[in-house]
Parts: sequence; structure tokens; C-alpha cells
Amino acid sequence: MKSSKPRALAIVHAETSTGVLQDLTGLAELAHGKGALLVVDAVTSLGGHPVGVDRNAIDVCYSGTQKCLGAPPGLAPITFSERALERIRARKSKVQSWYLDMTMVEKYWGSDRTYHHTAPISMNYALREALRIVCDEGLEARWRRHELNHRALVAGIEAMGLEMNVAPEHRLWSLNAVRVPAGVDDARVRGRLLNDSNIEIGGGLGPLKGKIWRIGLMGSGSSRENVLLVLEALRRALDAEGFSCASGMEAAQGTY
Amino acid sequence: MKSSKPRALAIVHAETSTGVLQDLTGLAELAHGKGALLVVDAVTSLGGHPVGVDRNAIDVCYSGTQKCLGAPPGLAPITFSERALERIRARKSKVQSWYLDMTMVEKYWGSDRTYHHTAPISMNYALREALRIVCDEGLEARWRRHELNHRALVAGIEAMGLEMNVAPEHRLWSLNAVRVPAGVDDARVRGRLLNDSNIEIGGGLGPLKGKIWRIGLMGSGSSRENVLLVLEALRRALDAEGFSCASGMEAAQGTY
Repeated sequence: MKSSKPRALAIVHAETSTGVLQDLTGLAELAHGKGALLVVDAVTSLGGHPVGVDRNAIDVCYSGTQKCLGAPPGLAPITFSERALERIRARKSKVQSWYLDMTMVEKYWGSDRTYHHTAPISMNYALREALRIVCDEGLEARWRRHELNHRALVAGIEAMGLEMNVAPEHRLWSLNAVRVPAGVDDARVRGRLLNDSNIEIGGGLGPLKGKIWRIGLMGSGSSRENVLLVLEALRRALDAEGFSCASGMEAAQGTY
Repeated sequence: MKSSKPRALAIVHAETSTGVLQDLTGLAELAHGKGALLVVDAVTSLGGHPVGVDRNAIDVCYSGTQKCLGAPPGLAPITFSERALERIRARKSKVQSWYLDMTMVEKYWGSDRTYHHTAPISMNYALREALRIVCDEGLEARWRRHELNHRALVAGIEAMGLEMNVAPEHRLWSLNAVRVPAGVDDARVRGRLLNDSNIEIGGGLGPLKGKIWRIGLMGSGSSRENVLLVLEALRRALDAEGFSCASGMEAAQGTY
């Protein structure tokens, strides 16, 4: 008889396609009350926002190296709670994937050292160095930096008469979603930013395609210089597209 | 009705755990005659031995970056024949793994550029540089270098009174399996090589555990200097373990 009880509650902490930060409060109680694991995607938050793996009683939490941690892409840091490990160890069916067979990976990472894969050692060193830099700055100082630069960008964007796509209390600091003003061609503005100013910002995906710009301020990219640079470049690109607006520079500067 | 016809003939070209080179001649005819794809693991041969993807009509061939190509580990170069692509495109069941869903990867690598994963770009650059070095040397010259250093090592090993584990016609050039002489402790000798000479060689796996040493001569590691170094270090390690034997240096030198 197949159980109809939920096995996992999986959620994205920092939703890169919309710029929304998901509040994790209470989710573990909800999941654990139903016997489910809480699985959290922290790809765009780890290193830029507090994640609180233990505080939020997350059972499986994974991230990427290339966002707020500031290492090259190529690895996915992952952590498991005791509850998750028990679930993994108790499974009776064969794991369908060698790649993500955590029963094998656990033996490889553990004291057994049973061969599972050849570790991408250059990436491991790169992540180690990135984490050293995170520690040098301090995790809390790093969060505050991501928040401050986000606030400065928002102040500039709003001074330009543009709108953020997400309500203030749900905004990511690392990924800033700005509404494309009516009558402005999303792709042409992004093309100008890329070609004239060497700045790449993201477009909207799915239902938001053509409707938002996604401005990343992650890791070392979250800086006062970059905030001012993108605000001015965006103003010039909009101006070239016939959409004149005020400068956001002063408002952004005022935040610092 | 489930077909009982074979769907694929999968084979390892260069068998790293035993040091055996698999002759690929005739395998495609055999596989294709039964309607099966020929899938070849060329992890330890690509760049060190001729693989002949087209000549041998291989349908799916994959390798690693960290063996004879001489790049860091972290990527798996892979190629598909038209026959394999047709099979992939015609599949009706859902691919069980996002990671190796080639229907999605094809759209990402192709002109669609539909997002599938964030490419490990530093590794891509590293592989590009490694391939540039391969091209500088020339693929055929690289094969000859791997063969020559292999022959020199074998000459030295045999002059020391030791035996290779694989018959001459089936020997890999990149991975050399040497029988552990009777009465010699495999792990102690490898420990001495590592600690005294900073040389790491592999031990046997499975039924060959404790019975062979596996000496890698791959990429830039396949050099005259390394052949002479490991021969002399092995002689000293064996001597320290109470197994005295002749030097293999002169025989190895004679090969060049």
C-alpha cells in the first residue's frame, strides 16, 4: 500500500527568477508534523542572506558556489540533518542515479573512503579560498553589505521612477527584480547595457518574460561601485531608447 | 510488450582497474547488427591511445578531463552519433535524471540555449587550454609518447625481475599494472613510495586487491623523467622491504 503522506516539503529560499525571498519560519514544524523532510534550495541566498540551517531545522539544504559565495560555478554545497540521514539509510529501493546516490557519497565522504567519484579538486580549492574570503569579511558583515547595496539600488531605481517587482518585505538582496516600464523593449535595453557598458543583467522568465529585469548583486559583485555603475548605465540605456528619467545616483549615494 | 533485444553494448576502452586495453574492432558491427548502440568509456584512453570514435563507429563515447588530456578533474567530454541522437529524440518515457537528461542538454548546447545548468566555466577554460596543449604536441605524437614511456617502464619493470599483469598485446600505455611479488606487502611499498618519494601509485581493486600496483603515466605525467623516477623509487622501496632486485634504469634508458 502506497502511503499518501508527504515525504518532503521542498522550497526555494531565494527565488532567482522572481527576486523573492521565502520566509522559512515555521516550515520545519509544518513538515515534521506530517513526517516530511524540509528541503531548502539556498542557491542564491547562502553567503548573502541568513539561511539558518539549524535555526530553521532544515533537513536538506543545498546551494551553489557561484552566487553569493563568490567562487566559480561547478559545485553544490549540501548538508543533511540526522533526520535526513536516517531517511537515506533506511531506504529500501535502489537509488536511480549514481550521481546523487547519497548512500554511496556518504561512504566516500566518510571514513570508509569507498570510491564514488573523482573529486573536482581545483573547484574544491576554489571554494575553500572563497570561504576563506567569506570568513575574512565575516558572514554577518557580508549579509549587511548585500542588504546595504540592495537598499541603495532600490533607492536609485525608485528615484528614477521605476518600480521593484517584489514587495519590500519579500525582496532578495542578491537578485533585484525591476519592472520594465510600459513601452520599453526589455531586450533592447539589456543589449545596450551589455554592448555599451559591459553589464549583463537577466531578463524575466516564463510569465515574467519581457516584464522584469533581474539585477544580480552577489558576492564581490555586491558593491557600491556596481550599484552606481548599473544605475547610470540603465539611465543612459533607457534614454537611448526614448525613455527619459531622472538619475538614481544621488538617492543611491544617500543610502550609504 | 517489452523487447528482449539488446539496446546497448557498453564497454570500457581503457580499463583503469586492471590496465587492459579493449580492442574495439568489430564491436560496432556486432552491436548495430542487433539494433544496439555501441557505448564506449574512453576515460583513461582519450589523448593517450587512439580511440577512433568515427573509425570504430562508436555511438556514445565519453571520457574524463583528468587522465590523458591533462586537465583538472570535473568534466566529462561526451559525443553522440546520429544514431544515438535519433534514439534519444525518439524516447517516449521521461528521463529519470535531470543531470543526464540529454534531451534537455541538447537544447541547451544547441541554438535554442534553453537553460539546463550553469556551466562550470573555469573548468571549460581549463579543458580548452589542455586541448590547446594536446594540439600543440599533436595527437599522434602524444600517443607515441604515451607508448614509448610505457615501453620504457615495462623494460625497467622486467629488468627488475617483476612481471606485468597484462599480456603485451592488451596493455594500456596510460595505466601500467605490475604484479606485487610474492611475500611483499603491497600497501607498505605504496606507503614508502608516497612518503619517501612523493609518488602515489594505485593498489589493486576487488579480486586484484593486494596483488597489483597500478602506475599511471598519463598526460604530462607520461615522461622519461617520471619513468626513471618511479623505477628507482620502487627499487628502493622494495629493498627497504627486504626484497632486493636489480635496477631497471638501464633497461628503461635503452628503450629511448
